[in-house]
Amino acid sequence: MGLNRSTIKALVEELVDRGLVSEIIPDTAARAGRPSHVVVPRSDTVHVLAAELGVDTTTVAAVGLGGAVLARRQYMSTSPSPVDQTVDRLAAELADLQSEMGGRLVGVGVAVPGLVQGSDGWVELAPNLGWREVPFGKLLARRLGLDVPVKVGNDGHVGGLAEHLRGSGQGTDNLLYVSGDVGVGGGIILDGRIQLGACGYAGEIGHMMVNPNGRPCRCGGRGCFETEVGEESVLVACGRSPDAGRAGLREVFAAAALGEPAAVAGLHDVVIWLARGLASLVNVLDTELVILGGTLAGLLPAVGPGLAAELASLTTLTSRHPVPIVASGLGEDSAMVGAAELAFEPLIAHPLGAFEPSRLVPPPSAPTSASAAGVAV
Amino acid sequence: MGLNRSTIKALVEELVDRGLVSEIIPDTAARAGRPSHVVVPRSDTVHVLAAELGVDTTTVAAVGLGGAVLARRQYMSTSPSPVDQTVDRLAAELADLQSEMGGRLVGVGVAVPGLVQGSDGWVELAPNLGWREVPFGKLLARRLGLDVPVKVGNDGHVGGLAEHLRGSGQGTDNLLYVSGDVGVGGGIILDGRIQLGACGYAGEIGHMMVNPNGRPCRCGGRGCFETEVGEESVLVACGRSPDAGRAGLREVFAAAALGEPAAVAGLHDVVIWLARGLASLVNVLDTELVILGGTLAGLLPAVGPGLAAELASLTTLTSRHPVPIVASGLGEDSAMVGAAELAFEPLIAHPLGAFEPSRLVPPPSAPTSASAAGVAV
Repeated sequence: MGLNRSTIKALVEELVDRGLVSEIIPDTAARAGRPSHVVVPRSDTVHVLAAELGVDTTTVAAVGLGGAVLARRQYMSTSPSPVDQTVDRLAAELADLQSEMGGRLVGVGVAVPGLVQGSDGWVELAPNLGWREVPFGKLLARRLGLDVPVKVGNDGHVGGLAEHLRGSGQGTDNLLYVSGDVGVGGGIILDGRIQLGACGYAGEIGHMMVNPNGRPCRCGGRGCFETEVGEESVLVACGRSPDAGRAGLREVFAAAALGEPAAVAGLHDVVIWLARGLASLVNVLDTELVILGGTLAGLLPAVGPGLAAELASLTTLTSRHPVPIVASGLGEDSAMVGAAELAFEPLIAHPLGAFEPSRLVPPPSAPTSASAAGVAV
Repeated sequence: MGLNRSTIKALVEELVDRGLVSEIIPDTAARAGRPSHVVVPRSDTVHVLAAELGVDTTTVAAVGLGGAVLARRQYMSTSPSPVDQTVDRLAAELADLQSEMGGRLVGVGVAVPGLVQGSDGWVELAPNLGWREVPFGKLLARRLGLDVPVKVGNDGHVGGLAEHLRGSGQGTDNLLYVSGDVGVGGGIILDGRIQLGACGYAGEIGHMMVNPNGRPCRCGGRGCFETEVGEESVLVACGRSPDAGRAGLREVFAAAALGEPAAVAGLHDVVIWLARGLASLVNVLDTELVILGGTLAGLLPAVGPGLAAELASLTTLTSRHPVPIVASGLGEDSAMVGAAELAFEPLIAHPLGAFEPSRLVPPPSAPTSASAAGVAV
């Protein structure tokens, strides 16, 4: 960072005073010589409330600095989902969680399956929720009535951000995160940055056309990536009801792993379309890694090698080495953890300025090992 | 920039001393009050040599600071193009041009229709030249024997960069540049930056699959964007010989504009595939502008409105406003001007440090109006 030792010392001491970080001596200091102190974020002094607004399930959580999930709950939601009811229920769940956590809240972040413009949470369109032009962030902030920023992001974007920072994409600066549930979204990380595009709508990979003879898509197109590999298509391809949902999809993946013919044949078709779509994206974006998230990640145990081989055969031009396809490292929490990152952004940008010390409770005793704090900075 | 007036004054004076910029009073200062001085790059004191290595035609030029093309030549090339012969011929043409220009050269930049890794010019693959794993930049630098950096870029990337800086994309931070000749390449500008991807191969939009039932592509895939809208496909679709080249394509566009049935019907098919591919890219990247470059730009007068309408119908999800499709502002020079930008990069990064003053000739008298210097910084 180009700072000298004494400047860094002074800055770290200020952050320690605020209770935001701890200096610890790693447990595993087996090497000779005096062990270096390590500065780690403290997840016990400040936290954010984060949520992933899903089509059928919504997750709410309290997340500490460094990405530690301190508390986590889920509730069933319905689709289409009236805006007022959704905001009321979400606000009530968040408030309830906060009353359990105590008074050290610094932000709220929500991941939404739709086109989100600006981090104040204007939702231009969320087809699977039945929303169009909804000032969701402002509605939620008003309903919550908490004196902290409320940030909103697209679920694919924040999922990709979380996987890049804390999941399967750590250390990889060019990656594609595919969020596959009822809808298929994406988070594009290039050169270490999440790419938003002109309006914040980049990553709508679900509406890349892959099959001109395919089914009509709700976007007005035909044969979109989403209509070929989305949840309903996978269920239908495998001879299940399109309404079987996440549970149905998990059953299909398990059946395919056991060799059930209908499931195996159906997933074979899905793999072809999935590989074609991913190959196009790898050729356009030159990402070195593809991370599958959402329910779609569940197909990897059954058909991962076939998918990787198919992808490799279609990207020989641009990839000297086959591009690995891996499951999300944060499981089904990618978007929720990413929403927490959004919520922490104002604090990270101004760790000493954004929040009055009086609004933080006096720090309890600092943790003494890295494991207590989670992830090192 | 956060600098105060006297610091800026001192910096500008140093640049003026080096002959890199001039302070001028705009001719059109019709407003009341003392007119502000404007700092413009001087294109007459330093220049670079730039080239676009084409499949059938190669362009070489001398380009001044600010993008002014000072001299420009073309010669026919053949394909496939043996590396040694290509390097010899290009070096000879560049040396010849330089001997005419005089001694103020600060760099050499070349645009190549292929996958280029790193700005020292390793060409991983250039299918239309018949090259694979060629250390082109180093070969050219050795053959030239000039004491300046030699930079190499992918033609789509540098074309996109040039259009963003000096062409149809000025002031637009999220755009897609499509370079359409024998091959179809691309330059993706997001958030004001050219996106390179993990290895520098981003933008290979020609190998996005659009038609699973299409013709085999030399990349190993099938129905790639390039096999549907590349030069040969357009010629065949319009009932011409696939070998008719650029001249044939221009004839087709002119015939279509005059209503010749075969050309009109053929271009109609091309427009469908072009719109489908562009729609996928706009949905994935959320660019607010598409710039067509290369020979492909010539179809806009004949079928531009139909193409725009088709694109708009396929991007309703992600675009509130239809995305305009415009021709390259630099005509056929986009990639060459972009190569010049690459060549200027070391000087721009260290305007006072990279080159010894002794290597610059004493500046001749400065130009006194903005028109003499070309483009303002």
